[in-house]
Amino acid sequence: MRWRVGLMVFGVVFLWVALAGASEEGRAPLSEATRTCLACHRMVTPGIVADWERSLHAQTTPEEALEKPALSRRISAQKVPEDKKAVAVGCAECHTLNPDSHKDTFDHNDFKVHVVVTPTDCQTCHPQEVQEYQRNLMAKAYRNLKKNPVYHGLLETSLGPQKFEKDQLVYLPSHELTQADACLSCHGTRVEVKGMALRETPMGEMSFPILSGWPNQGVGRINSDGSEGACTSCHPRHSFSIEIARKPYTCAQCHKGPDVPAYKVYVVSKHGNIFKSQGKHWNWKAVPWTVGKDFTAPTCATCHASLLVDPNGTVIAQRTHQFNDRLAWRIFGLIYAHPHPKEADTTIIKNKAGLPLPTELTGEPVANYLIDQAEMSRREARIKTVCSACHATGWVEGFFIRFHKTIETTNQQTLAATQMMLTAWKEGLAQGLPSSIFDEALEKMWVETWLFYANSVRFASAMAGADYGAFANGRWYLNKNLQAMRDWLEFKRAVKKLK
Amino acid sequence: MRWRVGLMVFGVVFLWVALAGASEEGRAPLSEATRTCLACHRMVTPGIVADWERSLHAQTTPEEALEKPALSRRISAQKVPEDKKAVAVGCAECHTLNPDSHKDTFDHNDFKVHVVVTPTDCQTCHPQEVQEYQRNLMAKAYRNLKKNPVYHGLLETSLGPQKFEKDQLVYLPSHELTQADACLSCHGTRVEVKGMALRETPMGEMSFPILSGWPNQGVGRINSDGSEGACTSCHPRHSFSIEIARKPYTCAQCHKGPDVPAYKVYVVSKHGNIFKSQGKHWNWKAVPWTVGKDFTAPTCATCHASLLVDPNGTVIAQRTHQFNDRLAWRIFGLIYAHPHPKEADTTIIKNKAGLPLPTELTGEPVANYLIDQAEMSRREARIKTVCSACHATGWVEGFFIRFHKTIETTNQQTLAATQMMLTAWKEGLAQGLPSSIFDEALEKMWVETWLFYANSVRFASAMAGADYGAFANGRWYLNKNLQAMRDWLEFKRAVKKLK
Amino acid sequence: MRWRVGLMVFGVVFLWVALAGASEEGRAPLSEATRTCLACHRMVTPGIVADWERSLHAQTTPEEALEKPALSRRISAQKVPEDKKAVAVGCAECHTLNPDSHKDTFDHNDFKVHVVVTPTDCQTCHPQEVQEYQRNLMAKAYRNLKKNPVYHGLLETSLGPQKFEKDQLVYLPSHELTQADACLSCHGTRVEVKGMALRETPMGEMSFPILSGWPNQGVGRINSDGSEGACTSCHPRHSFSIEIARKPYTCAQCHKGPDVPAYKVYVVSKHGNIFKSQGKHWNWKAVPWTVGKDFTAPTCATCHASLLVDPNGTVIAQRTHQFNDRLAWRIFGLIYAHPHPKEADTTIIKNKAGLPLPTELTGEPVANYLIDQAEMSRREARIKTVCSACHATGWVEGFFIRFHKTIETTNQQTLAATQMMLTAWKEGLAQGLPSSIFDEALEKMWVETWLFYANSVRFASAMAGADYGAFANGRWYLNKNLQAMRDWLEFKRAVKKLK
Repeated sequence: MRWRVGLMVFGVVFLWVALAGASEEGRAPLSEATRTCLACHRMVTPGIVADWERSLHAQTTPEEALEKPALSRRISAQKVPEDKKAVAVGCAECHTLNPDSHKDTFDHNDFKVHVVVTPTDCQTCHPQEVQEYQRNLMAKAYRNLKKNPVYHGLLETSLGPQKFEKDQLVYLPSHELTQADACLSCHGTRVEVKGMALRETPMGEMSFPILSGWPNQGVGRINSDGSEGACTSCHPRHSFSIEIARKPYTCAQCHKGPDVPAYKVYVVSKHGNIFKSQGKHWNWKAVPWTVGKDFTAPTCATCHASLLVDPNGTVIAQRTHQFNDRLAWRIFGLIYAHPHPKEADTTIIKNKAGLPLPTELTGEPVANYLIDQAEMSRREARIKTVCSACHATGWVEGFFIRFHKTIETTNQQTLAATQMMLTAWKEGLAQGLPSSIFDEALEKMWVETWLFYANSVRFASAMAGADYGAFANGRWYLNKNLQAMRDWLEFKRAVKKLK
Repeated sequence: MRWRVGLMVFGVVFLWVALAGASEEGRAPLSEATRTCLACHRMVTPGIVADWERSLHAQTTPEEALEKPALSRRISAQKVPEDKKAVAVGCAECHTLNPDSHKDTFDHNDFKVHVVVTPTDCQTCHPQEVQEYQRNLMAKAYRNLKKNPVYHGLLETSLGPQKFEKDQLVYLPSHELTQADACLSCHGTRVEVKGMALRETPMGEMSFPILSGWPNQGVGRINSDGSEGACTSCHPRHSFSIEIARKPYTCAQCHKGPDVPAYKVYVVSKHGNIFKSQGKHWNWKAVPWTVGKDFTAPTCATCHASLLVDPNGTVIAQRTHQFNDRLAWRIFGLIYAHPHPKEADTTIIKNKAGLPLPTELTGEPVANYLIDQAEMSRREARIKTVCSACHATGWVEGFFIRFHKTIETTNQQTLAATQMMLTAWKEGLAQGLPSSIFDEALEKMWVETWLFYANSVRFASAMAGADYGAFANGRWYLNKNLQAMRDWLEFKRAVKKLK
Repeated sequence: MRWRVGLMVFGVVFLWVALAGASEEGRAPLSEATRTCLACHRMVTPGIVADWERSLHAQTTPEEALEKPALSRRISAQKVPEDKKAVAVGCAECHTLNPDSHKDTFDHNDFKVHVVVTPTDCQTCHPQEVQEYQRNLMAKAYRNLKKNPVYHGLLETSLGPQKFEKDQLVYLPSHELTQADACLSCHGTRVEVKGMALRETPMGEMSFPILSGWPNQGVGRINSDGSEGACTSCHPRHSFSIEIARKPYTCAQCHKGPDVPAYKVYVVSKHGNIFKSQGKHWNWKAVPWTVGKDFTAPTCATCHASLLVDPNGTVIAQRTHQFNDRLAWRIFGLIYAHPHPKEADTTIIKNKAGLPLPTELTGEPVANYLIDQAEMSRREARIKTVCSACHATGWVEGFFIRFHKTIETTNQQTLAATQMMLTAWKEGLAQGLPSSIFDEALEKMWVETWLFYANSVRFASAMAGADYGAFANGRWYLNKNLQAMRDWLEFKRAVKKLK
């Protein structure tokens, strides 16, 4: 037996030496400042230090990163500040950057440290990604929700606690902490400094800023330096792993619920099935990402974000952090599906009725603020190029014909629901505008028509998600909900007649 | 450090040489025709070419496949056509097979190519699998839905868009594209040639057939050669991987929604837990599949399809592509659980009321068309043999006693719901037969009783799925729904009285 | 090519020899008795034998296990019985232990074997874990459900089949087999010997005990030796793998449904995302479990059970099998969130109204039976220590401030629902106490307020689960449900007026 053990020991030692060598070799030199941070934080917050140590930030210097061939490069800056070129991107490199613009900067062991690293910090090395992201609706997710009176009304009637008094339900305003725990968890909070606090730490008592809206990793977070967005929504600290961002679990954090079931639909599609089964064999870190070689079915990132090449290295799709760059239609979140808005900031939109919505209540798009047919065709052409890396033209055409029909029929069903609601308002069975359009039972049924069911159906159509077009929050519920709304009208009329 | 790097380089080179060698060695010779296809398609659709290159089809010739010992053999033909014996199963081998019987055959660079490869093509090498599958209800999933007037009615009232006019909701007929996007996504479409189209391709303008019902991978697809079914539902192109078919993600594509929550139930069972945790260590490709050695908990395929042996090589279960071969009861999709139908084509069934249903509306089975007790016992014995590879007799017996009780009590609850619906019809509160039995709110509540809740409960019982028998679309909802139906009767009677 | 094949063969042989050697070396000596068991069971139930062979029970003797340093030790006994010290923990070691106290002990090939191994058996080597578990609410899950008249009422009206006669729905008592298939699947059954049965086996006819409540792996199972609990709920037979117990799939078996969506919430949290993406790289078997080194994001076990150390080996959290040891608040399953009960047996609690509930119907906690503020602070401090291994103090504080607000607002919403129900009782629109408080439609809506929606919201807050605080069974449904309850009052009043 001894020789077997011997061989095994040899094997293990061989691997250990090889891997250990690699990781020591791979570690980039650390700045003096980061060394100081690590001296304590290795003990105080060992989890994130270990996580960071595995990241490319710890293993490469910006200088080395700049030397890569264009398609393989992971930083988009032409050059980086002199003092950061030759060191790892460590604690100090990010958390002490731009100290004056961060309101959360505080004195911490003789460093001017800020808690919340922001897109403005990240763009030191990644400017193109940050600029693209600013054109992404997601970067404006806080603003588009909170500064749009209609949408703010939906937030309030969704979250605001109700009390029952004098036989009536009364909505109370939602608390800022509740908002942060719900809608703003994904949309992003507003992070503000509310003072300083002494806190007990393993190093003794220390002073830290008190931040409202913190913790948060929402996509449209308003940061203490005034910037919008959080790169960590998808590139979580402190590994900032491209593997994590490329896997659909990241998107699922905010795109899985009934209001936006993208992940659920994906996972029952053929693409999702193959990912679940074969993803373990794929190369999740290659840049660029080669179709067929690195992976054999797309994830969210493949279709909507990643730089893709074919096995000859020819570019199939350019990387984009403006995720509607390959999307013509906006299919969720709003009452009717409609062409994507021109600007990421949608608070500027006004429809004919004066509401900040991209369509009328009866569905007509507010064309002025939305991309035109030419731009829609350009975007659809981009996504079709991705499809065509694996699918013949007939397949792709057939797919889009169905998708367009689905947009038409789901908008039609939403209109039927809206007409019933308008009827209820007219007959005084429910209170419509200028009162809230989201607070009563019928109105909430109306909201589910489009926010849950028509959305699900469109996602199912967009990703071949089978039962989400039928029974899984799909057309079955859409039709059932309409029947229940119709009954509600009858019941309420009876109640009214008796009064 | 240099020796570490040296060792690592040696290791990497060693692995690369070994793997590269293996894959080159493993590649079977290609036919002239397939070589021609690949010359362009490597560039045009690189994703699927790369996928196919990893498949057994690319790595083995039928001749080699025939030489395997019987239990390990993956093809069931006794012999294969002379011209296909010694080459890989490549593009041309499948897409130019039986050109005359395929209505979608077209001229493509001097080849007579058809787009949609069908079971009739596959049975060249896999005849036994195709024959078994033709006895599978799934092969008739299109026909059994579309040619059964009752079930076609359910489809129409689930999908058909409704419009609201003159204070009434009116169902419009569902569009063919909508059907393809919903029910037929799983059940299969009818693929028909609707003409030819010139399309721009990277190789210039080319002519392709326009296919209705395409793309589709539904299990009962009607193909352009008249055959029924799609092997690619479970063995997706172009890897045709047995690993994918054996993992539950494949079944989840169509068996996860509220109407058939098999995957959801599985995944919260002990079996599903162990699969999720340990599956990465299993041998997913071994044929036959050895219990305990290759895997330690069953997947869908294990219980319902795969050829299983014990570690001595003794057969525990024969492979079957007729999935009810090991199942006595049909527990989902119909109003009441009942013994499996004798024939896969269920459009032939007529109950006493003249409806094409395997039971009366009040639950009595239509015995003539269903398997008898002897056949039920044979099938239950087969599945018990699979259970017994890991479980003692007392465990297995206890399990089946519960399952039979669940069939009884869920049928009983469905009857209570049906009686309320019959009451509503009698009192004119809703319109029953010969009008649609699926279009009104009460009828839709009735449908959910059996299509969602009783189904979930039975799946939970069949697979030890815990909360699906209780709160997760289980008995809680079943009982709540009955109470809501009872209230509906009261409310509608009040409305009627006031008119 | 030959040298490539040669190299590959060398590689494969090298690995095979190394692995085969390891597994043979690793196998501990077997007792005579276990050898006898295996002689048949290798053939009769090959699946579980193979599973056990991979377990630590098969690879280590208790004697070896006792020699490990304290933090790495996996058994908590100071010593183990002399005859078990030097052999593997095999079939006979567990299934013939304490034969006299097991009512299911039977003669089986000259051994006194019992079917169901219990915590009392396991504590031979693992006494500390068993003792802690007895203070875990889960150990009393059968008793706390079945012996609490209020909760037993919820069980009956959830499961009991209803029949429709004389225009009324009537609840029938739920069958014992139904209970085992539903609530008791997770809560645990009562396992009792109901006689002996002759059964056909591959070894001929043999006699086995007939057990009620079997199979079952519920957490509070009443065993035939009178003990409570089942270690196999989380450490499934026969691998008893710590890897399985540490992964969230195990907890998901019972903590995924709408009544306790812990897994669903986890999986859309950042923690869940990182686990799903990176878990494959983690060391799931290390004891103790080192933050940052062995894993980079927590699972259920990390926060609630495991022994955690930092990379220097300093203990962050002691192992506990009393899972509320690090939890101050009980946030699910009961009407209002409240401080954890002092005792695992909650049948002893009585509120002012005489009901066995930890709060009044209107929410006031029954302080006498619940932990006090000091104990709550101690428990919260423990969980915060876990958070702090990766998060700064401001992050952790901000998180808990939100969580406490969520407890307050969800309790407030539940009160509004309760007040509507009390109104209905007072007006005779529904029948309240002493009649069932769970059987009518309005009451079932009330139950969903707290059992589904308020619960989901609290879990979302406790684990940063985004949409579960908003649309995914969260505050949206909570508020919609309140509006629907309000409408129900109106409709019922109309019906009453007409009578």
